[in-house]
Order: sequence, then C-alpha cells, then structure tokens
Amino acid sequence: MIYQLYYWPGIQGRGEFVRLALEEGAAQYVDYALLPSEQGGGVAPMERLLEDPSVQYPPFAPPFLKAGRRLIGQTANILLFLGGRLNLAPKDPAGKLWAHQLQLTVTDFVVEIHDTHHPLGGGLYYEQQKPAARRRAQEFRAERLPKFLGYFERVLQANPARKGWMVGARLSYVDLSMAQIVAGLRFAFPRASRKALDACPGLCALHDTVFARPRIRRYVASGRRLDFNNEGIFRHYPELDG
Amino acid sequence: MIYQLYYWPGIQGRGEFVRLALEEGAAQYVDYALLPSEQGGGVAPMERLLEDPSVQYPPFAPPFLKAGRRLIGQTANILLFLGGRLNLAPKDPAGKLWAHQLQLTVTDFVVEIHDTHHPLGGGLYYEQQKPAARRRAQEFRAERLPKFLGYFERVLQANPARKGWMVGARLSYVDLSMAQIVAGLRFAFPRASRKALDACPGLCALHDTVFARPRIRRYVASGRRLDFNNEGIFRHYPELDG
Repeated sequence: MIYQLYYWPGIQGRGEFVRLALEEGAAQYVDYALLPSEQGGGVAPMERLLEDPSVQYPPFAPPFLKAGRRLIGQTANILLFLGGRLNLAPKDPAGKLWAHQLQLTVTDFVVEIHDTHHPLGGGLYYEQQKPAARRRAQEFRAERLPKFLGYFERVLQANPARKGWMVGARLSYVDLSMAQIVAGLRFAFPRASRKALDACPGLCALHDTVFARPRIRRYVASGRRLDFNNEGIFRHYPELDG
Repeated sequence: MIYQLYYWPGIQGRGEFVRLALEEGAAQYVDYALLPSEQGGGVAPMERLLEDPSVQYPPFAPPFLKAGRRLIGQTANILLFLGGRLNLAPKDPAGKLWAHQLQLTVTDFVVEIHDTHHPLGGGLYYEQQKPAARRRAQEFRAERLPKFLGYFERVLQANPARKGWMVGARLSYVDLSMAQIVAGLRFAFPRASRKALDACPGLCALHDTVFARPRIRRYVASGRRLDFNNEGIFRHYPELDG
C-alpha cells in the first residue's frame, strides 16, 4: 500500500502530525504538497478532490489521506486509522480509545495555538488583527498553555508503564504528536514555552526521544520536513510571546 | 449498565450531543449536571474527578462519561464509544470511521460557533469582547456558516442510501448531532441561519425527523432537556446575527 497524503504546500501544519506517523511507521507514501504541479502537487488537484462529486466520503478540509480507494479526513481520524496499521497505537480497545482521546485533546490545543494569531478568523491577515491577537495570546500564555501542558505531563507521569510514553509501554502516534507540539511551541513561543515546559520534564524528554528515533532523524535530515514558518499553525511573533 | 454523564450544569453545551445519543439509544444514565449537590450534582464532584490522581485515564474537560470502571472524555470519542453499544453507528469499520470523521467536523464547527461570542478567549465575558465578537461573527455568517452547512448538506444528499440520513441507511449519532446543530443555530443566529438553511433542505428535514423521534420527543417533553441560553455554546446576541 502506497498512501497518498494531501495537505497545503509550504507548511507543516496539521499535515505534520500525519507525516510523523507515516515516517515512524515506515509507511510508503506520496506527499502531494511536496510535488511540483506537473506531478500532481499544489493546491488545485487537492481542491478538485475536495469538490469531486464522485468521492463517496468527501473530507471537509486538508489533511486527508488516500489509502487504496478510501479517502480519510480529520487529522485525529487519520491517526486512528493509521495507528493500527502502522503499529503506532495500543491494540486493546480501551487503550486505542484512550490514545485517540489524547489525540483529540491535542487537536483542541492546536486550535487554541492557531487562534492566538487568528482570533478574528482566517479571513483576515495577522497584521489586520494584531490587537486582538495580543489579547488572546495573553490568556493563552497565562492560562491555556500551562493547563494543556500540565495535563499532558500528568498523563505521561501517571502512565503505569513508566517508560516515558504517553500511552502504554510503547511509542504511539500520541508521542509523535506531543513531540511535535513541544517543537512547535518552542518555535512560536520561545519565552512562554520555556517557562511552561520547565514544569514538564517528561514532555521535554519525550520530545528528545522522538526526534532521536532513527526514522524521524532520517526524515528531518532528508530535508522533506519543512521548517516552521509564519504561514503555519505555529508562528513566531515576538509580540505574542509576552 | 447505568452510564454516568458529567457535564457543566445549566447548559446544553457539548453534553447535549451525548445526551441525545443516550436518549435515542434508550440507555440508562445518570446526568450529574441535573442532580442537586446533595446527590453528587454540581461542579465540585466533577472537578474532583478531573483532578483525582487515582483515575488512570483522566479527561481534560467535561463532558465525560463513566461506563463501569471506564472514564471516557471528548464528545466525539464518547460518541464513538457509544455508537457501537447503542446501535447508533454503522457496524463496518469504514462506515464507523466515516461517521466519526463527520462528528469531528461537527466538533470543529462547534468551536467556531462558540468562538463567535468568545474570540478573545474564555477568560473574558462576552461583554468585554463585543467588538472582536462582531468581527468574528461577520466572517462566520458570511463564510464559515454556509461552508459548513453546505458541506453537511452535500454529504447528506450524496449518501447513496438516500434515506435522508447523514451516514448509511439508518439513523446514527451524527444525525442527532446535526439536528442539534440546526436547532442551536436557529436559536443563536435566527436571521443568518434561516438564510443559510434555505439552501439545505436535507438538513432541515433531518432536524424535523430527529426531533419527531418518539424517544427524543419524550426527552424534550420531560423537561430534562435544558433550554438554550446565553451561557452555553449557542448564544443569541442579535448584534452578532447581522
């Protein structure tokens, strides 16, 4: 099976949570965001698929994954699907549901991270909503950032397997996503995240462990992992970092 | 099995998506939000459970469901769990994942609906963020509302079973949630939603069908379904309705 991943070109964004799973799971996949337009890359073919009336299960938005004849949308749903196939999730139903529950909490966190720079909506540029972004980011740094990270740290520390993973005794897609969250927060909010992560030694160690995995290292070294930039979810605007 | 539902008292909120499934599925459950505090209702016992270090799989926030010894959080995850047990979801893996994908898109929509009145965050009252709310609601009415509803209408119309349901040939939890979305939008945005729903005859019919189901009618008539109010997700502020 060669998976096909569709996501906006030029950013890590939500697609990166899927990419990390595909890479760690040693899946074969084509990442259309990275292809030149002659080979099917770019936005137009992706939007055609989103609008194609012959698609039985149309996704609402990227990222989406083509797996054989199936088209699967929603980041956490894609990971739920891939988790079993790539051996990146617990096998028992309760563990599977728990991993997914954590991933949905990551999803919520990602929305709040995004909304620090776009509180008034995606139709305006950041530059058109700076005062609102400042206000939203203030509450994010003071309340939401430590609350989410504290929760995830608590989950990691309470994992009875005590191997440093979020769920059970083996790496899961949740660990990959948490490491990505830590990396993104350090890019976007170097000051605020340093303070918040000081209280989260487990998450910091998890970040290092994930990015030291051989397949993830090869992926990063390949140049295929796009750099963080101010077009994505994690954006570095010093004025939002307090 | 007697399920135990924990959610904020006084509002329908995200808890209502779970309640509609429990009601239509004829599940036995205790809704702690409705109990007096002497019987375990109110916020304090719920917050104790959220903080309880002996809980192996702690939820991040309400709603959460206790099912035997299991504690399950995240609205869409609770519905994923209940779907199979209450016969409110397709049985085949592809249909199950598709129903869940739609529910996650409902979740995204709910966040955007909520953020129309709280674009700057939950730490400020609506009255403290009215200009920002007006700006966010403007984009919501013009872009996001028709986009989400148009997508769901398209999904319903493209369902090959052609029975008027979102997924397959039988009612699922997605139908219950869609009906709740229509009801909530009509309360919060009577003007804007009338216009947007004019283009969505399938969703309007689905709303009527769901609220005419015998068990849902009994639930509404029982008085246990709280009224919409301006403390919940769907709030009616005429100035946000254009």
